Amino acid sequence: MSLTIVPSLFTIANLIFGILAILNTLWEQYYDASIFIILAMIMDVLDGKIARKLDVSSNFGKELDSLADVVSFGVAPAILVYTQSLEHYQWLGLAVIIWFAVAGALRLARFNVITTSGYYQGIPITAAGSFLAFLLLFAHMINPLVMLLITAILGFLMICTFRVPKI
Amino acid sequence: MSLTIVPSLFTIANLIFGILAILNTLWEQYYDASIFIILAMIMDVLDGKIARKLDVSSNFGKELDSLADVVSFGVAPAILVYTQSLEHYQWLGLAVIIWFAVAGALRLARFNVITTSGYYQGIPITAAGSFLAFLLLFAHMINPLVMLLITAILGFLMICTFRVPKI
Repeated sequence: MSLTIVPSLFTIANLIFGILAILNTLWEQYYDASIFIILAMIMDVLDGKIARKLDVSSNFGKELDSLADVVSFGVAPAILVYTQSLEHYQWLGLAVIIWFAVAGALRLARFNVITTSGYYQGIPITAAGSFLAFLLLFAHMINPLVMLLITAILGFLMICTFRVPKI
Repeated sequence: MSLTIVPSLFTIANLIFGILAILNTLWEQYYDASIFIILAMIMDVLDGKIARKLDVSSNFGKELDSLADVVSFGVAPAILVYTQSLEHYQWLGLAVIIWFAVAGALRLARFNVITTSGYYQGIPITAAGSFLAFLLLFAHMINPLVMLLITAILGFLMICTFRVPKI
């Protein structure tokens, strides 16, 4: 087995956890859904680290990584925050979560075609999506209006072009 | 407004219809979920045609297109077929829909890094996902075991490397 596929196995785990997060939302297991998004985040951190460590970064790996990220940190948190916290706002809630997921996809597509060094443009979708999932672990303590605003602002922070230092 | 963003508006509509397909699955509106996947397919056909017509194809557009496709034709049909038809199979059903979605993502990542002319390698995810959505319009007439096999085979057809002529 070639070492080049090792990081992709972590990326595939990221995607699978994203799908399980959506299914758990559907099953009304909201706590589990948040945990799966956080597990996806851990896989996403590991795939990059391992690819660099093994020196097997590839365009295929980067493409697959973005495809997993849009599911796990764009669509899965959007569906979860709507179902768990924003359903009451109906069309407004729907507009905000669609804004969040679309902003995440635009952020990923831009990231794949521009080259920056030492900084990101806008916050990464992995940070935005897993922060939302982490907050939702405490959804019962957070006013839905606050969740609505945070979701909208996270979408804006992903799409804007200010520089965020890489850590 | 620059013409270059016109095809991307159709791609964003594709992504939004994919998200609405997942939400409708969650709301047990399975018929509507299938229709949204088919609408996403129409948007996906239009964005490519319009980009070529206006001669504004871009790498950004291609990246965004793949991100929308993995949601609308990978994850959305996987969640829908599981919920509507395969839940009874539990772990086996789950394994098959994860296989379908992961195969779709691998197909998209490969498509973005290799160049072929006049043919596709494996069937496109748009074809596989919208065919599944179309079949699910008649889910009450189709044995769940047949749906399980079709979903597994579609995953295989996406991932294999035989040549499919472009039409």
